[in-house]
Amino acid sequence: MRDDVRTVEWAGDGLRLLDQTVLPGRVEHVVVRDADALVDAIRRLVVRGAPALGVAGAFGVAIAMLQAEREGWDDAARDAAIARVREARPTAVNLAAGVDRVVPLVGKGVDAVVAEAQAVLDEDVRGNRAIGASGADWVTARTPDRPLRILTHCNAGALATAGWGTALGVVRELHDRGRVEKVYADETRPLLQGARLTAWELVRAGIPCLVQADGAAPSTVLRGLVDVAVIGADRIAANGDTANKIGSVGVALACAAAGVPLVVAAPWSTVDLALASGDLIPIEERDPGEVLAWGGTPTAPDGAGGFNPAFDVTPARLVTALVTETGVLEVAKGETPGRAART
Amino acid sequence: MRDDVRTVEWAGDGLRLLDQTVLPGRVEHVVVRDADALVDAIRRLVVRGAPALGVAGAFGVAIAMLQAEREGWDDAARDAAIARVREARPTAVNLAAGVDRVVPLVGKGVDAVVAEAQAVLDEDVRGNRAIGASGADWVTARTPDRPLRILTHCNAGALATAGWGTALGVVRELHDRGRVEKVYADETRPLLQGARLTAWELVRAGIPCLVQADGAAPSTVLRGLVDVAVIGADRIAANGDTANKIGSVGVALACAAAGVPLVVAAPWSTVDLALASGDLIPIEERDPGEVLAWGGTPTAPDGAGGFNPAFDVTPARLVTALVTETGVLEVAKGETPGRAART
Repeated sequence: MRDDVRTVEWAGDGLRLLDQTVLPGRVEHVVVRDADALVDAIRRLVVRGAPALGVAGAFGVAIAMLQAEREGWDDAARDAAIARVREARPTAVNLAAGVDRVVPLVGKGVDAVVAEAQAVLDEDVRGNRAIGASGADWVTARTPDRPLRILTHCNAGALATAGWGTALGVVRELHDRGRVEKVYADETRPLLQGARLTAWELVRAGIPCLVQADGAAPSTVLRGLVDVAVIGADRIAANGDTANKIGSVGVALACAAAGVPLVVAAPWSTVDLALASGDLIPIEERDPGEVLAWGGTPTAPDGAGGFNPAFDVTPARLVTALVTETGVLEVAKGETPGRAART
Repeated sequence: MRDDVRTVEWAGDGLRLLDQTVLPGRVEHVVVRDADALVDAIRRLVVRGAPALGVAGAFGVAIAMLQAEREGWDDAARDAAIARVREARPTAVNLAAGVDRVVPLVGKGVDAVVAEAQAVLDEDVRGNRAIGASGADWVTARTPDRPLRILTHCNAGALATAGWGTALGVVRELHDRGRVEKVYADETRPLLQGARLTAWELVRAGIPCLVQADGAAPSTVLRGLVDVAVIGADRIAANGDTANKIGSVGVALACAAAGVPLVVAAPWSTVDLALASGDLIPIEERDPGEVLAWGGTPTAPDGAGGFNPAFDVTPARLVTALVTETGVLEVAKGETPGRAART
C-alpha cells in the first residue's frame, strides 16, 4: 500500500509539518523554526495525534536550541521555551515524553538532539507496523472469515503519527490482507478529524469509507453493521482506562452492549504507568467557540455557552484489546498495562 | 415563562411555518398553500419534530383540498396529494396520524378539516403542558433537591410541537419551579437542531445552556455532570423501544451505565401500538451530503461515502420513564405502552 504521507519531518533547520487544518481541501506544508510557532501549531492542530505530538515534541527541543542560538537566549529562556512546547496540550502523554526523551542530550548539542528525535520518529513508524500486524492478527482470529466492517473514531492514522498509523495501521494491514469491506469513519466533531483526515487517508489507500455523524456511531454498532471498532488513544492509565478523542466512550458503550470488540491501538509510550486510573488523566477543554460556530458562522444563538472537552475516558472494562508494539493485552479480561509492566 | 413561538399556524388559506432552516440567524415565516410545497418543507425540515409534523399533516389535508378546488383537480389527484404529504417522512408516526385523523372529514368540506386540524394543534399544546407537569413531578421526586443539570438531545421544544414542547416542556416546567441549573444541549449533527433550535429556545426562556458536540454527551453523563437526561421521541413501539434523533441511544447507554434517569417525553400519539418492537420502526436515511459537506463546502474528500440515518432506536430497557399527557410509565421496569393500553 502506498503510504507517502509525511506528517512531520525534520527540514534541517526546522520542522516540516503537513498542515492538517486545511485538509482535505488542500495539501500544504509549513516549516516551523520557532518554539512558540510550534506551540501554536500544536494548539491549532496543524500537527495532532498522540504519536505525532511525541515526535513534534522531540524535534521541538531542537527548534528551541536553534532559536536560542540564533536569538542569543540564555539557557533559562531556552528551557522555558522547551517547557512551553512540553505543555502545549495536556492530555497526550506522548508530547511530554517526546520532549523528556531528548532533553538529557541538550548538553551534547543540537545534532545529538535531532538524531534522537529522528530515532523517536523512526521507532514510531516501526512501532506502527508492529501494531498493525499484531492488531490484524488479533482481529482476524476473533471475527468472521470475510471482509470486515470496521468503525473508527477521530484519526489515528498516518496523520496522527510519523507514518502508517495506529488504529488505521491495523485497518491498513487488514486491507493488505484482503480483510476490509468498509470503514465507518465518525466525522468527529468539533474539528472533523474523521471526515477530513481519516476519510482522506482511507480514500488514498483505496479503502471504502462511509463518513457518519458521531451520534450515529452507537446505533451503527447496535444495528449489527460493525464487526470491530478500532480507535487510538491519547493516554492510557495503568489500569487500562483510555483517554481518546471525545466521542470514543459512546462507541465503547455500544460495542459492549452489542458484543462487538473494541480495539485500542497505540504505542506503548501512550501508557502512563504513573496514573493508576483514568480519573487522574487531565482532560483538555478547548475553546467553546469550536462548538458554537462553523467556519466563522455562528451555529448557536448569542447567549448560549459551549462545553468542549477534547477527550473522554473509556473505562478499562470496555476495552476488549489494547494493541501496542509489544503485543496485545485483553484489558477487559484483566490484562492491564500496569500488570504487564510488572511481569 | 414567555412562549410566543408559533411553529405552525393556520393562515386562512395556507399554513404559516416558522422556517427552522434559517434559525437562529433569522426568524422568518413562510406560508405554504401547495401540497407539494408542504412535502418539500417537511423534507427540508422547515417544519420538523414529531408533534409539529402531526399538526402539519392535519392542515396539509386542508391545503390539498383548497389546491384541488383552485386547480380543478379530481378527487383522485387530491387524494394522491394527501398521500404524498402523509409519506413525506417515514419515521414519525405523528405525521401519518395527523393526516389520518382529518381525512374522514374531507367529505364535510375544508372548514370541518381545518377545525379538526386546529383541534390537533390545540390538543398538542394542552398535551405538552400536561407532559411538562407530569415530567417535572416525576423528575423532582427522583433527583436531588437542588437546581438540576439536564441533558437533552436534538430539539423537542416549542419548535418541534405546536407550542411549549415535550422534552423542553419538562425543562420549562422545571425552570418555572426554580429547579434548573443548566441544560447541556447536544448540537445534534448533521443538521444542528440542538445548537440552532434548542439553544435558541433556551436562551429565549432565560435557561442557562451549554452546547456540546454529540460525541461529548456520553462522557458528560459518565463524569457525573448530569442529573437527568430528557429527550423526545419520533415513534415508540408497544414494548417501549423508542426511535428518536440519531445520537439518542448513545445518551441512553451512558445514562444506564451511570445510573442517570433517561426520560422520554412525547405525546401518546407517538406510540405506535401496531409495532411490537423497535426493530419494526422504519429508519429514514437522509442525503449523505448532509454529512459530507457544510454550508456547501465539502468536509470530506472526494471518494468518501456518507451514512446518514436520521434516527436511532433506544431499547426499552434503557428508557427509565416515558412521559405522555396521560402520565408516566417506568418502561425499564416493565410498564410498557402496550401493557398500559390494554389496562
